[in-house]
Amino acid sequence: MLKLWTNARVITGQTDQIRPEPLDVLCDNGRIIHVAPGIEAPNAEVVDCGGALMTPALVDCHTHIVFGGDRAREFELRLEGASYEQIAREGGGIAATMTATRAMSVDDLVQSALPRLDHLLAEGVCTVEIKSGYGLDIEAELNMLRAARRLGEVRPVRVVTTWLAAHALPPAYKGRAAEYIAEVAITGLDRAQAEGLVDAVDAFCESIAFSVEQLEPLFAHATKLGIPVKLHAEQLSHCGGTQLATRHKALSADHVEYATEADAHAMAAAGTVAVLLPGAFYTLRETQSPPVAAFRAAGVPMALATDCNPGTSPVTSILLTMNMGATLFRLTVPECFAAVTRHGAQALGLSHETGTIAPGLSADFALWEADSAAVMVNRIGFNPLKARVFKGEYV
Amino acid sequence: MLKLWTNARVITGQTDQIRPEPLDVLCDNGRIIHVAPGIEAPNAEVVDCGGALMTPALVDCHTHIVFGGDRAREFELRLEGASYEQIAREGGGIAATMTATRAMSVDDLVQSALPRLDHLLAEGVCTVEIKSGYGLDIEAELNMLRAARRLGEVRPVRVVTTWLAAHALPPAYKGRAAEYIAEVAITGLDRAQAEGLVDAVDAFCESIAFSVEQLEPLFAHATKLGIPVKLHAEQLSHCGGTQLATRHKALSADHVEYATEADAHAMAAAGTVAVLLPGAFYTLRETQSPPVAAFRAAGVPMALATDCNPGTSPVTSILLTMNMGATLFRLTVPECFAAVTRHGAQALGLSHETGTIAPGLSADFALWEADSAAVMVNRIGFNPLKARVFKGEYV
Ligand SMILES: [Zn+2]
Ligand SMILES: [Zn+2]
Repeated sequence: MLKLWTNARVITGQTDQIRPEPLDVLCDNGRIIHVAPGIEAPNAEVVDCGGALMTPALVDCHTHIVFGGDRAREFELRLEGASYEQIAREGGGIAATMTATRAMSVDDLVQSALPRLDHLLAEGVCTVEIKSGYGLDIEAELNMLRAARRLGEVRPVRVVTTWLAAHALPPAYKGRAAEYIAEVAITGLDRAQAEGLVDAVDAFCESIAFSVEQLEPLFAHATKLGIPVKLHAEQLSHCGGTQLATRHKALSADHVEYATEADAHAMAAAGTVAVLLPGAFYTLRETQSPPVAAFRAAGVPMALATDCNPGTSPVTSILLTMNMGATLFRLTVPECFAAVTRHGAQALGLSHETGTIAPGLSADFALWEADSAAVMVNRIGFNPLKARVFKGEYV
Repeated sequence: MLKLWTNARVITGQTDQIRPEPLDVLCDNGRIIHVAPGIEAPNAEVVDCGGALMTPALVDCHTHIVFGGDRAREFELRLEGASYEQIAREGGGIAATMTATRAMSVDDLVQSALPRLDHLLAEGVCTVEIKSGYGLDIEAELNMLRAARRLGEVRPVRVVTTWLAAHALPPAYKGRAAEYIAEVAITGLDRAQAEGLVDAVDAFCESIAFSVEQLEPLFAHATKLGIPVKLHAEQLSHCGGTQLATRHKALSADHVEYATEADAHAMAAAGTVAVLLPGAFYTLRETQSPPVAAFRAAGVPMALATDCNPGTSPVTSILLTMNMGATLFRLTVPECFAAVTRHGAQALGLSHETGTIAPGLSADFALWEADSAAVMVNRIGFNPLKARVFKGEYV
């Protein structure tokens, strides 16, 4: 099953530059085996890319696309001046999403997530991370990840699942955060792992969510089970989450607007990716930008992701997210490009599977009607995708 | 040629609320003749909308989608720290677009604009305004509007053309703005009108472009010819453009971040629409929001448009523009909805032609897979369009 991809202008993803010489990409059974100019492979099926721009398929490494209901009415009320307290009193906010999510079957969750997933795929995404975190009891959290796994079966996409039971404290546990972590987040994690539902463990470390102390036992348990961790850290204030994450060699620390230079050094030392989420920054009209200069100086890899969720980032465009990374956070074009390809893959522990065009990796490509990576980042609300290739097949 | 549109949840556009009773819409030869529940029309062809949300087709009332080249490389350089001066020295900025535009034939201009136009149409737009303003000599300005007219022939869309020769001072006229206005903007306008190319006259009133005094003769000439005017006004500073516009009963004053309460009252008295352009505000990372409260208090209708252009607003999504109107400018959902339907039409002098679903108007509809107008405004990078209807036909 040899396939030779030819006649493309190739960005391999090691850099964002189009290779000056035309490159051919030879694949065997959906895996890249050779990348070079003028490959001779008489037994291979030849695919002519028609001069399109070929890049690694994109990676959306932080999403919450599985959930029930929507929060459009709440968005409307806030624009009319309602406060967060008023909305919470009327049952809005994350509690509304929890209630709607708990009421749905796995099938319902899959159906409601599909249009969101399809929008991501239509922009060249072949790998998407999906978190639990709106069920907030064991069964509903498991159902979210069952739905996530199912999404990876009904669409040609690599789904990476994350156990995020420690997303918010459900009303039933008010004032008993430590018990929630023990009884739901940790106990449920064992069940989720037994069912093969967990690729990573995540939590929300913030004054309005969980503290470092409360999360320490969860991360210790994940580490004991051999499951990598990641963390929603330093989004609205500096709470020390990044240090918790790096102590546990986290794959990523996400949001990190309030991370410090010391945090950046700890991340570099631990190999922790900074996952920047400009959609939430934009929607919440935040003013504190993540410390991009410190990440650069320390050599912390930066990824960008949609953070697609019903409340703070109802975003289903990874291309727009690249533009927001540039416009709002001043990432350069090469940084934005790496952020949704190889650094996105690294944030998921998948550097040796996807995110670049290199021998040994999955043949996950995107073909674009575009002159350069700069065009993809510059344009807003525009999709130049011509074709998506997942594991060596047009999909 | 009677056609009866049934089984839709209808937002007529007088408000953004879905009418509680199901409405039928009866059309004759592409025009709406009756809107009511349970219309009996035995001779009409019946179109079942399958329960979709039906709204007026959307209007993008301020664009520069016809131009040559792109400015992605310049965007990239700015992110790497290049100053505007450096870029201008290297031939970047509006001068680069002028050079690329002048080098293109009408056919080339049409071909390069089509993907931009198609993105707008894919989001339910049936009316789009297109400005000249990158040719900056008579022939190249005429070619831009010839291309705009052609776009309205090769796609099912209503194109409204605007003569914007007074967009920037070309290098050949450095220091001679008054002569440019006389020799190019005014002389060319006569030719453009003779050729049927002009629906309105626009200009850029700003310290980096033209002053009120320089523009007065152009607007006086337009008024003499019976052509309505509009103006890029008070975008980066308060220059008095709004007062110039309202003295000439302008259809709209656009951008208007720095407009004052007095300007708002003058606009209300003159019937001038405030066209807000959040894509440019976002791209330029401006901090001065337009005086929405003053516009509300004075009763100034507010429209939203993409301002699609290669430099300051490379935006081809009217849906994202609605979200930016809400997120960045705090427009409410009903305001955002009116801003891309009836107020957009009003900004083009087309209130009696499109923008609402009412007897006498063109049958321009959009059908959506959405529960409410709030969903359309809330979502980011998502397109729930099911179908577009222009002059009574699915297109
Ligand atoms: Zn998140
Ligand atoms: Zn403009």
